[in-house]
Amino acid sequence: MLTRCIRTQIGIHNMPSQLLLRFANPPQPWRDCRGLASDTEDNDQIKTLMQLCSDRYYMICDALNGDPFHLGISRPYGPLGMELRKSILDKWWTSVVISRAQVFGISTMHLTKTISATGQNTLKLVDSTALDRIINQKGLNRDQARDTMSKQLQDSSTLRTNLLQGALEQYLPSLELVNRRLPFGLAETGVCYQPLEGQTDGPSCPAEVTRASLVWFCSPRTSSQWLDYWARQRLQWWRKFALGPSSFSCSEVSDGGEGERASRAVRILYQFPWGAEPLETLCNLGDTELLQTHGGSRAKLQCRDGRKYVLPHVISVCGNIDRGVLAYLHNSLQEVKKTDSKQRLYKRKVLKLHPSLAPVKVALDMGRGPTVELRQVCEGLLQELLEGGISAWPGYLDTMHSTMEQLSTKYDEMGVLFTVLMADSTLESGLVQVRNRDTTIKETMHISQVKIFLTKYIRASENV
Amino acid sequence: MLTRCIRTQIGIHNMPSQLLLRFANPPQPWRDCRGLASDTEDNDQIKTLMQLCSDRYYMICDALNGDPFHLGISRPYGPLGMELRKSILDKWWTSVVISRAQVFGISTMHLTKTISATGQNTLKLVDSTALDRIINQKGLNRDQARDTMSKQLQDSSTLRTNLLQGALEQYLPSLELVNRRLPFGLAETGVCYQPLEGQTDGPSCPAEVTRASLVWFCSPRTSSQWLDYWARQRLQWWRKFALGPSSFSCSEVSDGGEGERASRAVRILYQFPWGAEPLETLCNLGDTELLQTHGGSRAKLQCRDGRKYVLPHVISVCGNIDRGVLAYLHNSLQEVKKTDSKQRLYKRKVLKLHPSLAPVKVALDMGRGPTVELRQVCEGLLQELLEGGISAWPGYLDTMHSTMEQLSTKYDEMGVLFTVLMADSTLESGLVQVRNRDTTIKETMHISQVKIFLTKYIRASENV
Repeated sequence: MLTRCIRTQIGIHNMPSQLLLRFANPPQPWRDCRGLASDTEDNDQIKTLMQLCSDRYYMICDALNGDPFHLGISRPYGPLGMELRKSILDKWWTSVVISRAQVFGISTMHLTKTISATGQNTLKLVDSTALDRIINQKGLNRDQARDTMSKQLQDSSTLRTNLLQGALEQYLPSLELVNRRLPFGLAETGVCYQPLEGQTDGPSCPAEVTRASLVWFCSPRTSSQWLDYWARQRLQWWRKFALGPSSFSCSEVSDGGEGERASRAVRILYQFPWGAEPLETLCNLGDTELLQTHGGSRAKLQCRDGRKYVLPHVISVCGNIDRGVLAYLHNSLQEVKKTDSKQRLYKRKVLKLHPSLAPVKVALDMGRGPTVELRQVCEGLLQELLEGGISAWPGYLDTMHSTMEQLSTKYDEMGVLFTVLMADSTLESGLVQVRNRDTTIKETMHISQVKIFLTKYIRASENV
Repeated sequence: MLTRCIRTQIGIHNMPSQLLLRFANPPQPWRDCRGLASDTEDNDQIKTLMQLCSDRYYMICDALNGDPFHLGISRPYGPLGMELRKSILDKWWTSVVISRAQVFGISTMHLTKTISATGQNTLKLVDSTALDRIINQKGLNRDQARDTMSKQLQDSSTLRTNLLQGALEQYLPSLELVNRRLPFGLAETGVCYQPLEGQTDGPSCPAEVTRASLVWFCSPRTSSQWLDYWARQRLQWWRKFALGPSSFSCSEVSDGGEGERASRAVRILYQFPWGAEPLETLCNLGDTELLQTHGGSRAKLQCRDGRKYVLPHVISVCGNIDRGVLAYLHNSLQEVKKTDSKQRLYKRKVLKLHPSLAPVKVALDMGRGPTVELRQVCEGLLQELLEGGISAWPGYLDTMHSTMEQLSTKYDEMGVLFTVLMADSTLESGLVQVRNRDTTIKETMHISQVKIFLTKYIRASENV
C-alpha cells in the first residue's frame, strides 16, 4: 500500500515505508473507533451487516446462501440500497463531469458487434429460437450444423464488459467538440457484464456490475502526472464520504494482471474483513488501445498539446460502484454495547452513512394522541420535505405502536439521519422533538424550522 | 386519439369526437407556429433533424444509413444527447418517485433465469467458449450434441425485456416497507433489450431501450380511477417540457396487442412526421400477472385497503425514454426563414429545448482583445458557473475566429440557452453581452450578475 501518489502529495520520497503508511492512513480515533478485530469478530460482523442489509431494505438477500458478499455475485437492491447507489453515482458524476469543462458525458451501447481492443469477450447474446431452428434443422450433417452454429455465434452481439472500449470509439467524434485540444475526458456510468470465473459446472449467470468510467486523453509528457492527479482526486473523493477514511487506501500496481498492458496502474482499495478489494482502478494505457481501436492511423488521431501535435496517451479510471456501495455500508456500520431500560446488555447497531449519502434523511413519527389531527400535521410536514427534495419516511403510518426504543433501533439500522417525533402537545405549541442519529441527542424545535434545519445540516456536511 | 382520461378531465362525455380532439389538443399558435406540412416537407424536416443531431453532438449517426429515426434501431448518444436523456430521466424520477411518499425506487437484475409471467423471452446470453466446446466435442453423435446444446440454452440467462417482471418479484419484500397498505408503487429506470422484429436475414443485434417504469399496486375498486389519474399526470408531465404541447396526446387502447391481457390501457403518444408513436403505455393488468409471478398464493399477497384485505390490481406505467428524447428533439426544432447580412435567404434552425432540459445552458465567448487577460476572466466565470451546477460551454477556447453569426448558428442548433460575449471593454467596465436563444435579444449585464440571472431564469422555467 505504499503509494507513489501520496509520496508526491507530501513531497517526501525517501521515508521508511511504515512511516509513509502512517501518513497515508493517519489514525483518526474520533472518526474510526473500531479496533483491529479477530477473524471470528470479522465473520460476525459480515453476518450482522448481511442481516441488516436484508432487513432494512438495502439488498434482497433471501435467495442467497453462504457468504455472498465477496463472491462477486450480483444481487438486486431494495429501495434503500438503490437510493444509496444512485447517490454515489450522482456524486461521482458531479465530481468527475459536472465540475470541470473538459470532461464530457457519453452513452455507448451495451451490445456491440465490434471486437474489443481491450480483451476477448466471450459473452454472446443469441436468439434461442434461431439457434433451435439450426439445431433441429433436418438434412444437415454434424459438420454442417457445427459450421452454421459457429457462424451464428460469431455474428452474434457481445455484451460489453467495460466502458473503456466505447469511449475509445467515441474519441474521433469528440475531437471537434474539444477543438483537438488536450487534455479532455469522456465519462460514462452504466452496467457491464462479466463471465463468472471459476464456475465450471453448468452454464452460469454472468455477473452484472455498475461501473463508472472516465477515459482521459492527455499528452504523453504529462500522462504520469495526470495519473497521480486522478489517483489523488479519487482517493480524496472516496474518503470524503467515509466514516472511517483510513480503510480507503491507494496502491501502486507493480506487476500482474494489468501490469503487462499498462505502463503504470494505481488502485483505490477498501479494506474489507476478508482483505483489500479495488473500488477503482487507474491505468496509464499509453496509446496502444487507441491505435488498435482506430486501425492504427496516427495522423487522424493526433491532437494539440499547446502548439505541437501529438498522439495522446489514455488514462482509464474505472470504478466498481456496486463494490463501493458495499464498502460504504461496511464502513458505516458501528456497533456499540449498551444496556437497555431493563439493564440487559445489547449491541446497538447504527449505520452511520454520510448525511449526503443516507437514503432516508428523516423519519416522521407521532405518539398517541388525537390521531386524525396529528396525522394531518405529519402529512403536511412530509409533503413540505418531499417537495424540498428531502427524502422522508412516513413512520406515522405504522399502526403497530412500536416503543420509542424499537423505532430508534429500526431507524438507526436504516441509517436515517433524524427522527421527528410529534406529540399531543405539538398541536398546541407547534413544537416537535428531533433526534439525531449520530449523537442520539433530542432537540426541541418548532415545526416550521424543521425543513430549514435539515437543508442546512445536509448542505453543511457536503462542504466539509 | 379519443381519450377517456381527457373526457374525465373536462367532464363531458357525449361530445362529437372531432370536437373532443380539439379539446385534447387545443391549438396554441403562440407556442406552436408550424402549420401542417406536406410529405416532402416532413422528409426534409427529418433529414434536417438527423443532420443537426449528428453535427451538434446529440447522436452518433455516421454508421447509420437510410432512415434510422423510426426503425427502432438503438444508437449511441453524443455528449449533448446523453445529457438530454439524463435530464429527462431525472425529471421523470422527481415527478414519479421523489415527490411522493408511496413510491419506492428499486433496482432489479438485467439478467434473469426466471421465466417471465409477462411473455416469452428468447434472448439468451451464452458463453461462446462453452458452446464451442460442445459443438466441437468428439464422440457425440448429432442427437446427443443437440440435446446438450438445447439444455445449455435452456439453462442460460435471459436479458430482461421490460421492468415489470422485476417489480412484480419485489412485491413481497416491499410489503413490510408499506405496512401492507395500498396504494403503493415500485419504480425503476434502466436499459431493456428487445429482439428486433422483422429482421430475418442473419443474426440481428437486438435493440436497447432505456425504460422508465412505475408499477402501481392499488385496490381493485380504485384501479380504474388510478389509471385515469396516472394517464393525466403523465400527459401533463410530457407537455410541461414541450415547445408544441399539442403534439403530445393521450389515447385509449381499445383492442390489439395489449388489449387481450389488460382490461384497459392508455397510451401517451407523440405525433412524429411518420405517425403517432407511444412514449408511455399505461395498463391496468388486474391481478393475473401478480398471481402468476408468486405461484398463485392469494393469502400472502393480500394488502390492506382501509380495513379490508384485498388482492391488489397492478397498473403498469412504462415509458420509452429514448423515444422521448427523439420526441423532444423533434418538437423543439424550429426553422425560421431569414436573410443574412448579405441579403441572402437562409433558414435559421433553433433547437428550442425547454430551459431545464437544454444540455448546455450558456456558452462563453470573447471577441478579439488582450487575449490572456480576457481568457482569465472567461475561465473565472466558467468555474463559477460549473460550481453552481450550470453547464457552460467554453467557446472562448475555440481559436477558429468565427463570426458572431456563425457562433449564433452553432449555439442555436445546439440549443444553448444564452451566449455570453466578453469584449475588450469588459476588462474595464465588467459589462458583458448576454444573448437569449429564443428572443435573440442581446442584453448588457454586469459579469457578477450572470450566475444569479441564469439560476433565476432556469428555476422560473421549471415552476411554470
